[in-house]
Amino acid sequence: MNSAVLTIQCADARGIVYNVARFIFERGGNLIDSQQYTEELESRFFMRVHFDGGDLDEIARELPAFADEHGMEAALSRSTQRKRMAIMVSKYDHCLYDLFLRHQYGEINADIALVVSNHPDLKEVAARFNVPYHHVPVVPGARGKAEQQVLDLCAAAGVDFVVLARYMQVLSPLLVDAYRRRIINVHHGFLPAFQGARPYHQAYEHGVKLIGASSHYVTEELDRGPIIEQETIRVNHTHRVSDLVALGRDLERKVLSNAVKAHAEERIMVYRQRTIVFD
Amino acid sequence: MNSAVLTIQCADARGIVYNVARFIFERGGNLIDSQQYTEELESRFFMRVHFDGGDLDEIARELPAFADEHGMEAALSRSTQRKRMAIMVSKYDHCLYDLFLRHQYGEINADIALVVSNHPDLKEVAARFNVPYHHVPVVPGARGKAEQQVLDLCAAAGVDFVVLARYMQVLSPLLVDAYRRRIINVHHGFLPAFQGARPYHQAYEHGVKLIGASSHYVTEELDRGPIIEQETIRVNHTHRVSDLVALGRDLERKVLSNAVKAHAEERIMVYRQRTIVFD
Amino acid sequence: MNSAVLTIQCADARGIVYNVARFIFERGGNLIDSQQYTEELESRFFMRVHFDGGDLDEIARELPAFADEHGMEAALSRSTQRKRMAIMVSKYDHCLYDLFLRHQYGEINADIALVVSNHPDLKEVAARFNVPYHHVPVVPGARGKAEQQVLDLCAAAGVDFVVLARYMQVLSPLLVDAYRRRIINVHHGFLPAFQGARPYHQAYEHGVKLIGASSHYVTEELDRGPIIEQETIRVNHTHRVSDLVALGRDLERKVLSNAVKAHAEERIMVYRQRTIVFD
Amino acid sequence: MNSAVLTIQCADARGIVYNVARFIFERGGNLIDSQQYTEELESRFFMRVHFDGGDLDEIARELPAFADEHGMEAALSRSTQRKRMAIMVSKYDHCLYDLFLRHQYGEINADIALVVSNHPDLKEVAARFNVPYHHVPVVPGARGKAEQQVLDLCAAAGVDFVVLARYMQVLSPLLVDAYRRRIINVHHGFLPAFQGARPYHQAYEHGVKLIGASSHYVTEELDRGPIIEQETIRVNHTHRVSDLVALGRDLERKVLSNAVKAHAEERIMVYRQRTIVFD
Repeated sequence: MNSAVLTIQCADARGIVYNVARFIFERGGNLIDSQQYTEELESRFFMRVHFDGGDLDEIARELPAFADEHGMEAALSRSTQRKRMAIMVSKYDHCLYDLFLRHQYGEINADIALVVSNHPDLKEVAARFNVPYHHVPVVPGARGKAEQQVLDLCAAAGVDFVVLARYMQVLSPLLVDAYRRRIINVHHGFLPAFQGARPYHQAYEHGVKLIGASSHYVTEELDRGPIIEQETIRVNHTHRVSDLVALGRDLERKVLSNAVKAHAEERIMVYRQRTIVFD
Repeated sequence: MNSAVLTIQCADARGIVYNVARFIFERGGNLIDSQQYTEELESRFFMRVHFDGGDLDEIARELPAFADEHGMEAALSRSTQRKRMAIMVSKYDHCLYDLFLRHQYGEINADIALVVSNHPDLKEVAARFNVPYHHVPVVPGARGKAEQQVLDLCAAAGVDFVVLARYMQVLSPLLVDAYRRRIINVHHGFLPAFQGARPYHQAYEHGVKLIGASSHYVTEELDRGPIIEQETIRVNHTHRVSDLVALGRDLERKVLSNAVKAHAEERIMVYRQRTIVFD
Repeated sequence: MNSAVLTIQCADARGIVYNVARFIFERGGNLIDSQQYTEELESRFFMRVHFDGGDLDEIARELPAFADEHGMEAALSRSTQRKRMAIMVSKYDHCLYDLFLRHQYGEINADIALVVSNHPDLKEVAARFNVPYHHVPVVPGARGKAEQQVLDLCAAAGVDFVVLARYMQVLSPLLVDAYRRRIINVHHGFLPAFQGARPYHQAYEHGVKLIGASSHYVTEELDRGPIIEQETIRVNHTHRVSDLVALGRDLERKVLSNAVKAHAEERIMVYRQRTIVFD
Repeated sequence: MNSAVLTIQCADARGIVYNVARFIFERGGNLIDSQQYTEELESRFFMRVHFDGGDLDEIARELPAFADEHGMEAALSRSTQRKRMAIMVSKYDHCLYDLFLRHQYGEINADIALVVSNHPDLKEVAARFNVPYHHVPVVPGARGKAEQQVLDLCAAAGVDFVVLARYMQVLSPLLVDAYRRRIINVHHGFLPAFQGARPYHQAYEHGVKLIGASSHYVTEELDRGPIIEQETIRVNHTHRVSDLVALGRDLERKVLSNAVKAHAEERIMVYRQRTIVFD
């Protein structure tokens, strides 16, 4: 049966849940799951409603007026419109394999439309999973041209969101703007610590006893977008930098895949610097 | 302001969430938080609604008819009626201290009415936290008499639920019946493994690489009631039984306190052998 | 430079470490790392010494006499003699991919000699990583013949140890004997709980709040050999069996790979039902 | 029987382990446990040897010459000379209770000589555990005088090391110098992130998905001394700052107690900014 996810945010007010439940109920829908959250400092209300049944066309048509009436930002996502992602990589393959395999196991509710890379190295891996691979080199001083090419490829492939699976280039505002809050990056450090380059080296030098990885939405500020997911693992004095890198691979693929899954299922909402990630 | 928690379970049906939201809305209430869950195998629906405002007397009065109409089991718990717990202990004090301290920090939304023990050893600890301590010895062959005494003490103190904080006696049906699904035990093993006595010795002999602890509701079957919370911690070959016991103390106090917090906040619902624990 | 690992076990006695250190020192070797453990209940001593330099041929020649003199079981493993493993699979590919990828990243100090499967499904995966794949069907009533075929393949390929990467057949004593303490299995449950078939279903029915996976050496008794590594992950009431299966995949590949790494580096010693796993 | 711990660090060289083992063996000692570590970047060797038997007076007398001969820094710690700690607190009691209780359970191989606080609030808690409590107020502009008083108290009580159990004052060089590498602090953030004041507020504002706590040796630079132990716990958008504070209490007491245990057992060695913590 058709199902859909409705996400809403607005200033908190009495009766919101009731009004949303009624809006869906009166149009024939039935709630399968709903989650809500009220940020207390600013009285901001967030809701995610998963429902089936109902006339989705009617609901889609009448949603804007309903949202307007209650001062809501609202979005509807239909299960029949499965999202499509682009994966951007450089030379490391561990996150790419992880996404391919989880997709194959049915863990990710989205399709992999294409892989874009500034290197040719992983063409073979994409081929094995029957995913188109585009080599788009980034020439110093011509980043804009490369990114435009990526945008064109994404547009042609109907891409909804972009996953940076250890893509080792900084994005320009061109791409960030085009896919605002729809670009997910993995950073191999426990943000906000260890921003920037060589986080495992930084971790080693500080003698930390845990290393971490973080997935986050990309914004103009490098490694500072809203954090989606983080993991840590214990390390000790015997771990060399190369050991941290190896342990980090497990963390990286986990936080990235979890973020991709949550994004694909419309479970993430963003407010200022923070994400609400409904379970 | 007054607030209350409404918990509901029933066969799944279209419109339940809407009807519950309307029931509360029309009586002046406003949802602060709501969580729901549908068990798919048996189409069983569970809901917990936290709301404030509204005429709680009216809601309480009209709830039975509303629940009846929709085939629900429903229960209302008012924030003004803070729950009262009895803690039963033997000689170990780590869980007892943990409950006292977390209560003092305001982490537990319930009051500690009394401590009952089959030993006099921890009288002093209770005294430090100004909680009445009752020494009720369990004489072989006279368990019934001791438990009746516990029941009388609990009745006199208005006890809502009972916490077995490493109480080393098996309860008889007398007590289990009187506080059905309101007795929380901590077992120092990862249930369903290592039931019964000396679980850390069992764990050592099996050479496990993780030890665990479990909190659960008490039923007639020893260590087999619905599990509420579990934790594990890594161990290795160097850990002797005494080391497992020491590490286990941390697990035990954590799983017990988390279960007590969840129970006090009406976040636990039980269906057959499983608990639904809303976050 | 050549290096080697010397592993020793014996009854505890004064001066063992000194004698071992002297044995190596006097033959020109230098300790890079050493770990020891004394099991207290039975006064059993275990040691692993990683050293370089020295005349390895001389050390190998004189080790038996040295071990004899001190009542030790001792084994020498040279870094130049990298171990070779056979991987046995059925239809699930997640553990197989994990081993291939970690091998490719240099995380596993052993080579993958061949893959054997009772199904043809994963032939393609092995081909991608340039590893020979042998389809050895197990016909009811003819397990012995199939296992003999596996033994022949392993012998021809110089296999040192066998990894059951979700191989869904029970081994007979033929194979277990031939590779005693050299067959590593992954079980998708937290042993000793949930032995046998369908552990995730068992876990669901018991309503556990953590699921686990275990790697262990294979013995005649199903799922009862010495445990090498275990991991757990939190679950809750919302996880269906299929969700447990998905989460379990991550656990399984982790505990299996860690066991394989430890075995390859001679970091595991076995005494009765327990493993000593040196870090 | 008498036992002792010998800790050594020196430039790496062939034969160190052999020489240390011989030094102890020839003086009648027997190794119970030994751990070693070689930092590869600077070829620095670290060793901890736990032995019993032997003539400890002779070993102590001859150690300096032996260390000199091999260019070692070496230290001997006898089991008969149990360490004594001072605990400094302000108003929070959770770490204090944790240390008292673990000491009572025999988990900490040291004695609690006294408690010093800049507030009178926790006098009662110390009294319950029969530990002397000294209220040493810190008057603005007269920190030096207060610290001198602390030093006098510690000297009189034979204090070996100092534990800052949520002591909310910055120490001056006077105290830091007197107990260099013997003052252990707990910081309620995942260092090096969230240094300084109000780390839980910082964590909330950054929207992190894990919070942490760290124990470390105190140096002149606030929150920058060598890290001993760290822990994290998952949080999500629903956790308010007060919830982070509550969860953080569990982390703080764990990382502090683990650091105290390790220090008491001579398991920590420091080299530049990093600690070697032998298991």
